[in-house]
Amino acid sequence: MLLRDLDHSETDQNTLSLLRNWVRHGDEKAIKEFFNKANPYKIAEWIGHERKKIQIALFRALDLPLATEVFDYLPPRLQKRFLYSVSQDQAGRLLAALSSDDRTAFLQEMPRSVINDLLKFLPVDVKTETLTLLGYPKGSIGRLMTPNYLAIKSDWTVEKVMDHLLEHGHDSETLTLLYVVDDQGKLIDDIRLRDLLFVPRTDTVESLMDHQFIALQVDDDDETAIAIFRRYDRTALPVVDHNGMLLGIVTIDDVLRLSDREATEDIQKIGGQEALDEPYMDIPFLTLMKKRAGWLVVLFLGEMLTATALSYFEVQISKAVVLALFLPLIISSGGNAGSQATTLIIRAMALGEVKLRDWWRVIRRELASGLFLGIILGAVGFARIALWSQFSTIYGEHWILVAWTIFFALIGVVLWGTLSGAVFPLILRFLKIDPATSSAPFVATAVDVTGIIIYFLTAITILSGTLL
Amino acid sequence: MLLRDLDHSETDQNTLSLLRNWVRHGDEKAIKEFFNKANPYKIAEWIGHERKKIQIALFRALDLPLATEVFDYLPPRLQKRFLYSVSQDQAGRLLAALSSDDRTAFLQEMPRSVINDLLKFLPVDVKTETLTLLGYPKGSIGRLMTPNYLAIKSDWTVEKVMDHLLEHGHDSETLTLLYVVDDQGKLIDDIRLRDLLFVPRTDTVESLMDHQFIALQVDDDDETAIAIFRRYDRTALPVVDHNGMLLGIVTIDDVLRLSDREATEDIQKIGGQEALDEPYMDIPFLTLMKKRAGWLVVLFLGEMLTATALSYFEVQISKAVVLALFLPLIISSGGNAGSQATTLIIRAMALGEVKLRDWWRVIRRELASGLFLGIILGAVGFARIALWSQFSTIYGEHWILVAWTIFFALIGVVLWGTLSGAVFPLILRFLKIDPATSSAPFVATAVDVTGIIIYFLTAITILSGTLL
Repeated sequence: MLLRDLDHSETDQNTLSLLRNWVRHGDEKAIKEFFNKANPYKIAEWIGHERKKIQIALFRALDLPLATEVFDYLPPRLQKRFLYSVSQDQAGRLLAALSSDDRTAFLQEMPRSVINDLLKFLPVDVKTETLTLLGYPKGSIGRLMTPNYLAIKSDWTVEKVMDHLLEHGHDSETLTLLYVVDDQGKLIDDIRLRDLLFVPRTDTVESLMDHQFIALQVDDDDETAIAIFRRYDRTALPVVDHNGMLLGIVTIDDVLRLSDREATEDIQKIGGQEALDEPYMDIPFLTLMKKRAGWLVVLFLGEMLTATALSYFEVQISKAVVLALFLPLIISSGGNAGSQATTLIIRAMALGEVKLRDWWRVIRRELASGLFLGIILGAVGFARIALWSQFSTIYGEHWILVAWTIFFALIGVVLWGTLSGAVFPLILRFLKIDPATSSAPFVATAVDVTGIIIYFLTAITILSGTLL
Repeated sequence: MLLRDLDHSETDQNTLSLLRNWVRHGDEKAIKEFFNKANPYKIAEWIGHERKKIQIALFRALDLPLATEVFDYLPPRLQKRFLYSVSQDQAGRLLAALSSDDRTAFLQEMPRSVINDLLKFLPVDVKTETLTLLGYPKGSIGRLMTPNYLAIKSDWTVEKVMDHLLEHGHDSETLTLLYVVDDQGKLIDDIRLRDLLFVPRTDTVESLMDHQFIALQVDDDDETAIAIFRRYDRTALPVVDHNGMLLGIVTIDDVLRLSDREATEDIQKIGGQEALDEPYMDIPFLTLMKKRAGWLVVLFLGEMLTATALSYFEVQISKAVVLALFLPLIISSGGNAGSQATTLIIRAMALGEVKLRDWWRVIRRELASGLFLGIILGAVGFARIALWSQFSTIYGEHWILVAWTIFFALIGVVLWGTLSGAVFPLILRFLKIDPATSSAPFVATAVDVTGIIIYFLTAITILSGTLL
C-alpha cells in the first residue's frame, strides 16, 4: 500500500466521515479496531483534518503503544492539545516515547511549570537526558541534539563493532556513521558503517580511520549549523563541546525544519512584522495583532516625517499642483527599487553568498544598478508625460520642463532607494542585528521621506522662474 | 583534526598566501604535495576563496582521483568553470565521478550543445543513466533521482540480503533503507537495514515486511516532494512511476538544497523581481538588470494610475493643500498593511499551513486584522494632528475635521490593504500561478491607487462646506 495523501482523496473523505460517525455514536470499539489496522502516519493525518472535539475523542481511543507512534507524527500544536487532554501519567509515557530531540523541541515551547509536572512522569534516565538538553541555550545546536548515536573505540575490531551494533544499535537515530572516541570520550573520527561492511572482520577500527571529520560545536547557532549541513551534504553531524568531547548528534531532518523556520522568519520580517513563531492558522488573534501592530506603528511614525517634509514644500505644491500628482509615483518607485535591493542582499547574506567583507563590491554593484534602473524608469516617465501632452493640456505649457523634472527626480530617487536598500542590511549585520529586520517596508519608509526632498529640490532647480 | 572554517581562520589565510605564492612561481610540484596531504573539503574551500586565474591553476594541479573528489564539493559555478578549463576527456571523467543526481543537476544548467559534447566522454552505462534522468521535466522529482539504491526481493533470506549488500552496497547512496520489489520491479515495501541486523540470518525478508511505505511519484513537483520529506522525517524516499515501478531514490540533502532554493525564489519575488536562479555575487550585471527592470517597469506603469487618480482630485488639492501633505502617509500605511498580510499568506501557503479551501477563514481573519490595525493607526494619526494643532496653525481652523478625515481614511485604507494583501495570493493560487508572484510591492501599488480614491472620497465627505 502506498501512503500518499497530500490532497484529500475520496477514500480519505470516506474514512473521515466514518470516524466522525463513530465518535458521534461513542463507538470507541469500532474506532480502536479500525485504527489498529491502519498506519500511524495515516492516523495522524486523519486526526489532523478533524475539528478539536473529534480530534481529542479519536486520540483517546488509541491504545498506548499506537498512541505514542501516532503522537510522534503529529504537529506540535496537536501534541500539546492531546498532552493536556490525557492524564499526567499517560502524558509522561507519551513524552518518554518521543525521540529525545523531538522531546526537547516540544518541551521548550511549554511553560516552565508544565515542564516540571511532565518531567516527574518520565523515567529517571530520560528525565536526566531531557534536563541536560534543555540546559543548552535556545537557538543553540545543543537543543537539537540527540544522545542516541553509536560511539566506538579505535582499538576495536570490526567484529566487536558489529557486536556492539547488534546490542546498542536499536536506539541509535542513524547507523550511517559511527563515531570513534578516545578513552576520555573525545571525538577523534567518524567512520561510515558501509566501510566496515566491506573489510575483514579482524581489521581494527584504527586501520579505517583518516582522523578527519566534521563536527558542530555545542554552542553553534542555528544558522551556522544549517550552513555546515548545506556545505557537506551529511545526513547527521556529531556535536562536541569546547574540549572536543562528543555530546550527541544532530540529524538532517531537524535541520530541514530549522532551515524552513529561518526562511519563514526572514520572509515575515521582510513583510514588515515580527516573526510569528507559530503557524498562521493557529496563532491567537491578539498575538498576531501584537506581532503586526508594533512594526506598523513604528513605520507609521516614520512615515509621518513625509508630512513634515512636505510641509516645507507647501508653497511649491500650491503654485504647481501638477507636482502633487506625481508624488506617489516618484516615492513608490524609490520604495520598490529599495525593496528589490534589500531582499536580494538579505537573502544572499542568509545563504552566506554575501559576507560583510563584500560591502564594497555590493555598493559598487548597486550603484550601477540604481543608475541603470533609474534611467529606465526616468525614460518611461518622460515618455508618458511627453505623449500625454500631445493630447491634453493637463501638464500645461511647460510640460517639457515637468517631464525633465520627473526624469531626473526618478533617477535620483531610484538610485537612492537602491543604495539604501543594499546598505541597510549590511549596516545591521555590522551591528550584529539580524539583517532581515531592515524589512523592505522599513527601507521604503526611509526612502519615502528622502524621496520627497529629492523630488522637490529637483523641481525647484528645473522649474524656478516658470512654474515655481 | 576537526574541519571547520566558516570564518577565515588565520591558518587558512596562511595556506591561501602559500598557495598563491606557489601558483605565482609555477611550482606545481609543491601544490601537488601539499594537496595530496590535505582534505578534499578543505581544498574545495581554499580554491573557492581565490580569484579566477589562481583557481584554475590550483585545480589543474590536482591529480585526477583527487580532482574528482574536490570537484564534488565545489559550487556549480566553479564546476562549470573548471570543466571548461580542462580537456573534454578529463571533463568526461570528472563528470562520471559525480553522483548521478549531482550530475543531472549540473548538466541541466549547461547549453544543449555542451551536454552533447560531454556525454560523449561518459562511459556507456553512465551516459544512458544520465540521458534517462535528463528526460524528466525540469522541476520534477525525476531530475533529482539517483538510481543508486539497493533493491531486494521478498523471498530472500537475511543472509542473502547481506551478501547482496556486500556486493552492491558500495554504490548505494544510502544504506539506511532497502527497497523490496516484486518480480516486475514494482516497489512493495521498504525495510530498514537496522531491522535486518537484529534478526536471525535465516529469516526471510517477507517476515519483516509490513507492506506500508511512502514513495514519491516521478512527476511530483519540487514542492510536493519537499512537503512529503518535511512530513515524514525521512533521509531518503523511493520514486515510482504510475505503475508503481521503482525508478530511483531521492535523498534529503538534495531536498534541503531544493527547499532553500524555493525559499530564495519566494523572497526574491516578494521583493518585487524575478527569481535570480543564481547567487547574487555571480549573476552577470545585465541578467540581474533584466530580472529587476521588468517588474520595476510593470510596477511603475501601474503606479502611473496614481497620477491619473490624483488628477481627478486636482481641484480639492488646490483648495486644501493640507490634503497633499498626508498623501504619502495614508497610501504607504495601506501598502505596509498589505505587505504584512501578503507575505504571511504566501509563506503559510508555501509551507502548506494555509490551503485554498481555507479562503473564508483567511478573509474573516484579515477583515478583523485590518479593522483592528486601521483603528490603531487612525488613532495615532488623529492624536498627532490634535497635538500639533495646539502648537501650530499649520492645519488651519478646521484641524479637527482634518483629523477625522485622516482617522477614517486610515481605517479604510489599512482595511483595504490588508484584505487585498490576503486575497491576492489566494486568487493567484486558484489560477494556478505561484502566489509569491503577487509580491508585496505589487499589492502596495494596487493599494496605492485605490488608497488615493478612498482618501479623497473620505475628505470630500467630511470637509465639504468647510475646506472643500
